[in-house]
Amino acid sequence: MSNTPSSPQDQFANKAQAWSARFSEPVSDLVKRYTASVDFDKRLARFDIQGSLAHAEMLSAVGVISAQDRADIERGMTQILGEIERGEFQWLLDLEDVHLNIEKRLVELVGDAGKRLHTGRSRNDQVATDIRLWLRAEIDTAIDLLGQLRRALAQVALTHADTILPGFTHLQVAQPVTFGHHLLAYAEMFGRDAERLADCRKRVNRLPLGAAALAGTSYPIDRERVAATLSFDGVCRNSLDAVSDRDFAIEFCAASALIMTHVSRLSEELVLWMSPRVGFIDLADRYCTGSSIMPQKKNPDVPELARGKTGRVNGHLVALLTLMKGQPLAYNKDNQEDKEGLFDTADTIRDTLTIFVDMAAGITVKQDAMRAAARQGFATATDLADYLVKRGLPFRDAHETVAHAVRACEERGCDLADLSTAELQAFHPSIEDDIHQVLTLEGSVASRSHIGGTAPERVRIEAQRILDGA
Amino acid sequence: MSNTPSSPQDQFANKAQAWSARFSEPVSDLVKRYTASVDFDKRLARFDIQGSLAHAEMLSAVGVISAQDRADIERGMTQILGEIERGEFQWLLDLEDVHLNIEKRLVELVGDAGKRLHTGRSRNDQVATDIRLWLRAEIDTAIDLLGQLRRALAQVALTHADTILPGFTHLQVAQPVTFGHHLLAYAEMFGRDAERLADCRKRVNRLPLGAAALAGTSYPIDRERVAATLSFDGVCRNSLDAVSDRDFAIEFCAASALIMTHVSRLSEELVLWMSPRVGFIDLADRYCTGSSIMPQKKNPDVPELARGKTGRVNGHLVALLTLMKGQPLAYNKDNQEDKEGLFDTADTIRDTLTIFVDMAAGITVKQDAMRAAARQGFATATDLADYLVKRGLPFRDAHETVAHAVRACEERGCDLADLSTAELQAFHPSIEDDIHQVLTLEGSVASRSHIGGTAPERVRIEAQRILDGA
Amino acid sequence: MSNTPSSPQDQFANKAQAWSARFSEPVSDLVKRYTASVDFDKRLARFDIQGSLAHAEMLSAVGVISAQDRADIERGMTQILGEIERGEFQWLLDLEDVHLNIEKRLVELVGDAGKRLHTGRSRNDQVATDIRLWLRAEIDTAIDLLGQLRRALAQVALTHADTILPGFTHLQVAQPVTFGHHLLAYAEMFGRDAERLADCRKRVNRLPLGAAALAGTSYPIDRERVAATLSFDGVCRNSLDAVSDRDFAIEFCAASALIMTHVSRLSEELVLWMSPRVGFIDLADRYCTGSSIMPQKKNPDVPELARGKTGRVNGHLVALLTLMKGQPLAYNKDNQEDKEGLFDTADTIRDTLTIFVDMAAGITVKQDAMRAAARQGFATATDLADYLVKRGLPFRDAHETVAHAVRACEERGCDLADLSTAELQAFHPSIEDDIHQVLTLEGSVASRSHIGGTAPERVRIEAQRILDGA
Amino acid sequence: MSNTPSSPQDQFANKAQAWSARFSEPVSDLVKRYTASVDFDKRLARFDIQGSLAHAEMLSAVGVISAQDRADIERGMTQILGEIERGEFQWLLDLEDVHLNIEKRLVELVGDAGKRLHTGRSRNDQVATDIRLWLRAEIDTAIDLLGQLRRALAQVALTHADTILPGFTHLQVAQPVTFGHHLLAYAEMFGRDAERLADCRKRVNRLPLGAAALAGTSYPIDRERVAATLSFDGVCRNSLDAVSDRDFAIEFCAASALIMTHVSRLSEELVLWMSPRVGFIDLADRYCTGSSIMPQKKNPDVPELARGKTGRVNGHLVALLTLMKGQPLAYNKDNQEDKEGLFDTADTIRDTLTIFVDMAAGITVKQDAMRAAARQGFATATDLADYLVKRGLPFRDAHETVAHAVRACEERGCDLADLSTAELQAFHPSIEDDIHQVLTLEGSVASRSHIGGTAPERVRIEAQRILDGA
Repeated sequence: MSNTPSSPQDQFANKAQAWSARFSEPVSDLVKRYTASVDFDKRLARFDIQGSLAHAEMLSAVGVISAQDRADIERGMTQILGEIERGEFQWLLDLEDVHLNIEKRLVELVGDAGKRLHTGRSRNDQVATDIRLWLRAEIDTAIDLLGQLRRALAQVALTHADTILPGFTHLQVAQPVTFGHHLLAYAEMFGRDAERLADCRKRVNRLPLGAAALAGTSYPIDRERVAATLSFDGVCRNSLDAVSDRDFAIEFCAASALIMTHVSRLSEELVLWMSPRVGFIDLADRYCTGSSIMPQKKNPDVPELARGKTGRVNGHLVALLTLMKGQPLAYNKDNQEDKEGLFDTADTIRDTLTIFVDMAAGITVKQDAMRAAARQGFATATDLADYLVKRGLPFRDAHETVAHAVRACEERGCDLADLSTAELQAFHPSIEDDIHQVLTLEGSVASRSHIGGTAPERVRIEAQRILDGA
Repeated sequence: MSNTPSSPQDQFANKAQAWSARFSEPVSDLVKRYTASVDFDKRLARFDIQGSLAHAEMLSAVGVISAQDRADIERGMTQILGEIERGEFQWLLDLEDVHLNIEKRLVELVGDAGKRLHTGRSRNDQVATDIRLWLRAEIDTAIDLLGQLRRALAQVALTHADTILPGFTHLQVAQPVTFGHHLLAYAEMFGRDAERLADCRKRVNRLPLGAAALAGTSYPIDRERVAATLSFDGVCRNSLDAVSDRDFAIEFCAASALIMTHVSRLSEELVLWMSPRVGFIDLADRYCTGSSIMPQKKNPDVPELARGKTGRVNGHLVALLTLMKGQPLAYNKDNQEDKEGLFDTADTIRDTLTIFVDMAAGITVKQDAMRAAARQGFATATDLADYLVKRGLPFRDAHETVAHAVRACEERGCDLADLSTAELQAFHPSIEDDIHQVLTLEGSVASRSHIGGTAPERVRIEAQRILDGA
Repeated sequence: MSNTPSSPQDQFANKAQAWSARFSEPVSDLVKRYTASVDFDKRLARFDIQGSLAHAEMLSAVGVISAQDRADIERGMTQILGEIERGEFQWLLDLEDVHLNIEKRLVELVGDAGKRLHTGRSRNDQVATDIRLWLRAEIDTAIDLLGQLRRALAQVALTHADTILPGFTHLQVAQPVTFGHHLLAYAEMFGRDAERLADCRKRVNRLPLGAAALAGTSYPIDRERVAATLSFDGVCRNSLDAVSDRDFAIEFCAASALIMTHVSRLSEELVLWMSPRVGFIDLADRYCTGSSIMPQKKNPDVPELARGKTGRVNGHLVALLTLMKGQPLAYNKDNQEDKEGLFDTADTIRDTLTIFVDMAAGITVKQDAMRAAARQGFATATDLADYLVKRGLPFRDAHETVAHAVRACEERGCDLADLSTAELQAFHPSIEDDIHQVLTLEGSVASRSHIGGTAPERVRIEAQRILDGA
Repeated sequence: MSNTPSSPQDQFANKAQAWSARFSEPVSDLVKRYTASVDFDKRLARFDIQGSLAHAEMLSAVGVISAQDRADIERGMTQILGEIERGEFQWLLDLEDVHLNIEKRLVELVGDAGKRLHTGRSRNDQVATDIRLWLRAEIDTAIDLLGQLRRALAQVALTHADTILPGFTHLQVAQPVTFGHHLLAYAEMFGRDAERLADCRKRVNRLPLGAAALAGTSYPIDRERVAATLSFDGVCRNSLDAVSDRDFAIEFCAASALIMTHVSRLSEELVLWMSPRVGFIDLADRYCTGSSIMPQKKNPDVPELARGKTGRVNGHLVALLTLMKGQPLAYNKDNQEDKEGLFDTADTIRDTLTIFVDMAAGITVKQDAMRAAARQGFATATDLADYLVKRGLPFRDAHETVAHAVRACEERGCDLADLSTAELQAFHPSIEDDIHQVLTLEGSVASRSHIGGTAPERVRIEAQRILDGA
């Protein structure tokens, strides 16, 4: 096979003019800007080169190109990568996208070998490969950051396994919980997020290259060899699907939307806990700003902004779902819209998690305020009811008895635990001295020591489990 | 422990009145309707009973209730399940939700044992358990339906492994593909959907019961025993998270949005293929309607409606993400809004997939129209270019040569394959008689026989793989 | 013109069988259920009849049907409306939708005249007309409710024009504001909502009838007469657009999403203000629930649920946008999906606003807690800075001076206003006795009396303006 | 009043360090980047300056600053604007946002006068003013572009008032319509879009300045004077609302989502019409691209990409709705997230409409293909049925008669109009020679001449109405 393919040089020149003899006019500047992607897809450069090298290695192995061609391509790509990293590479809008920019430079550097690189592939499968390589790396980073964040939370939880604050439902005081237990709820959420990303990664990590434009290629390619070189778990098994599939991007955005949902919940609580009426915590100054006109202010900017960024990621998810709805096979230009939202999603996740790892470690806990709040809302009323039930009272009667005791406390401005045994016995004679063990905050939390319960001993077990890598 | 808990009877009565002595007025009818969920959550009844029975079994095993209590509860629940299945059960709006409706009836039927059932749990963890049990069953159904749909598509693909139609990119004719290959692209998509649901199932299948209201319970419960009884993979490890987590619902909706996205793409193509200008297929009459005023019409109603239902599922996903954004721990009433959209999503998926399984099998293929279309758009132009490249022509020159040949054919109103060898040689002398093998549709598709390629032989392998359960 | 049209009877019968001789099989039960809309579109019945009567009146006026036909149709429709209102009407799934159900009954009741009603129209323009009539009524209801809610808020604002609470930014105490001023912020939001609905109404209130299936009709119809009868502002000027346009539904959902966004913000504050650590207000018991296991709880269920319902409405908006994306002209079956989300949106808005009108009036203000909070966070620090600036201090120096004073107060656990003139002079000698007027909460709010400011006098003006109907 | 305010210089310096003496550490580089907005909000510079000049004019008019101060500020701002336009302005990330960047430069240029500019305002009301000024200009541009697009469509419609193509419902041939009528459907849609933007503009065009941080200011400002200077329609009447309101941004995004929905529908049709099986139109080459490997391809890239961009705008709408959900009053840092999506929405609308104005004018109509398609699908079957009804046949009988005739034609491979009168009479004796006028495409469309109908005469009236500015 004499294989002297392609003169992409001419094709590149054509980009700025008409497409071919079939076209009678060039695109306008606005259309060029509207349809070009190089401004945002150049971040794929490293992965584009990585994919090209694996493709060249395979072409050489199956004999479509020579060993010399492959060596030339490697040499050229090494130089290009260096130029890009040093900021010397010249990106041209006229060349539309990252792929043509790099290919043109390669041909400049190594000539014919560069022209042979595109054999047996097309931009459709090439870009799909690049995005998957890039996204795989982003997922690995995000999984690592989620692990760091879980460990940071677990560390604070360990320190505050005994610190008691009111557990809220409906923002009303419900029962006392430990602060460690509260933080570990978020460690659970971020743990599920990491699981989801790991599951998503399996579907990202399949090789589309070899699908060519849409139908495969007549060259004797070895797709499994390329997959192995690039550490893909397998190959996409249908070429039409391979070039048009963007499920993996949507799945990543959906997983990211859940990460940000969890971040938004934690942020809501941080903001609330920082509010002076609550005053449970303080955040390190570096996550806050002051006010130019209100000198007393310390605003929790970072959690607020993080909460706001939930919207951005939800929006990108909707954008991608809208994009793919009703698209016929195979590749359509609509798909170019897959990138910006996906890139921004990955950036948002990475920056937010990075900041939260550090911020979580820097939470200052105001134990006295937490404790005062837990004592304020009759948080152990349930414990009193349970006590009475265990003494044989029907639950409903116990419930009503407690309601009377609560009302009496409200009138006197005290908590249930402030009543003497004698005073409590006035509500029900079965109450004995051991009631005060039950009505203390410590007694209440300690009694919930089963798996998932708020007891300090359980918090220590769970926090350690996470610190040990669970 | 004397354990004679609860008089829920009174509590149920109170629902229609004030909540307790602390409340001075009942809720209005509108508020009652606004806040009640029984109209839609009664579909959880079977799972509510299943969860209660497992809870009772555990309470009995750890000695919190007696064996007799447990037997009474089982007897009562059996009767209630029968009443519900026979449509005899009387649902009351005043009792708010499915849980209180069933519990009240249980107390009517078995008295004190019924009153003891709620020991060590609360509605917060009870409803979370019910939804997970229900959703697990829905996921299993959906995975089964996706398998059926894949096999239905693979069966048609096997029949049409050799049927050729134009492969489109940008709705322009690109290269010939086989219809079997085209259908298998959807089998790939639905295969990923099944994978995603299986991954989601792992996170659904964890037991929240035991979290009680938010902090766990002081009763000596055995959560892992309940998990085993209910075939959960494990227990939720943090009570605050357990009662407020709705990740699994969002993840299911996201996976469903992708299923519907794939359905919308297939539907778009079915509608397009049914359009008279295309005319590639016909759908069985039972999936179409006519028109009352246009007697010639046969409208592909089912694919159109399915395409439209993508919106509904995307909407439910957004609703749930919006719902959870910024919610502080632990349970808030907002969460009651998790159900209707989730139920409708599961219904939509189930109905749509069920119909598509049958509809896919009933596609009538119009091979002549497909073939005519494939011959119309110069679909083998790429093959001609590849032929020239293999003969040593630089790719760009080959490209231009083909463009000239295409233009000549356009002027003469014929396809490339209609030109004689001599006529083709006028465009380039390296062309020989073997060119016609290349320019035939059959030659073009057969040459793409690698994994993922469109060749009939490859389609047969892949279709069989799916029929064999891959 | 002899005009003896149609035997819809047969057509109705056919619904349960095949569509016409062109169809060889009936639809299955599942397909029937999947494609039918009567379960949800029967709520359009009153408007379907109203539209039909106007159509009949016009057909009679232009001579397409006789006066007797029109009289018969009116008689029949009157009876049908009565049957529907009394719950006696028998809805049949086999007849698919509200239109065929009513038309079939009409033919039963009045025979041939009923058969002539469908002349010059089709279901495509009929359903578009019905939805617009229905939505117009819903909009009028919503605008009225928004007015009621604004007046309820203004009434409370008037009562609390002088009640001071801390104004928050970033949930940090910023400056004192009046509670009346705070509530009027919501009156502004709901005022814009009413404006938006009024604008939306203009685009809803155009008549599609006369577009027939898609192209208009060859009957000599008078569309402007029908528009006048039905109080439409005008007619849709393009038949293809008329049958496929769902802009008005999307615009209504977008306006509703903003209403719910405002409701969610108000709800967030109500929930926060009810929380014991804040304790600014109490809600009437009828909007709250207690807890079966925590007798001390009073949960603000209604605002929480309302906040959650924001998700539902956002979701419906996304569903409709997804639905319409990329739909070719003219009518496609996808459009049947326009109704359920739209209906649910209107119901949600109506119920929520109705409840909030009453709930707003029932807010109990805890002035002491508000005042204490306003005194806690150095809310008048800005006023001290402004005082110093007015005395000639550079703003930045003033800012720093105040920061020192704030820090001193923090250490002593007091507010700025608690410092004596002498103590304040230690921070800057320009401070004189008049400073205490500035540092009081009353002085601070009174000084902001311009349009839009928080001063009590301004609140009274604005509240009265709203009560007077602005 | 001696008024020597502020030393913002120091404050600017502080930005890179700690916020004030209350802060013990500076923000990290990542936090700085995470929270800064100058990279994207610098596009507001022109409007920030415009707003500042109006504010300074008012401060001078009411005597808060001197005439000399105002003159200095104007001089400085003129220079800054020039620097920005010439690209010489140095934007600093350390100064966070556009406001501080400009203010710092102003103080450098004009000293004390610059320091006095911020009197009586805060960044909260300043940024709200800037965005409204910017958005007002964008709306005016978009309304103008929509008018241009409508006129471009009307011009083509006028040219093709008589060109007949099949009108589709369900992508099945329904009835013949004129191409002019089809295009005017889009002119209607874009007309409603312009109405909606005009309505939105009313709510954008209100002045928030004067709300200061959240409560108004104690300076004697004249907000109505500033509003008049800046051509606002009025002032925001509540300061808390003014600084936190982002309704106008959401309303603009919702209106934009509808614009893009219409663009997506038109694009879908353009892509479909370009597809070789349909072949109704051709697009100018400058809106298309070829393929590097398929020389015969001409891909309608621009409509495809525009269709894809619908997702982006829907996403931004969802992002903003998510952002505002549940935000308590008044300003929170979340709100900084309002800008990027809003900017991108406006850019997308502007670029897309600009391109479509030109592209619409460049549509090449292939009348023969349209006509052939209209003749293919029995498009005048309805006309035959109407003819029979007018001759006295019951509609249902007419419908069945036509179905038989259609079936006969299908078997013979001809259209209804190809049958002779005698042949038609075999289906029903009432048919006479005038039937052929009815069965022609021209007769069919001409008969639908009422307002909204597809008749050429009506198309000419409507197109002219739009060209005349309706």
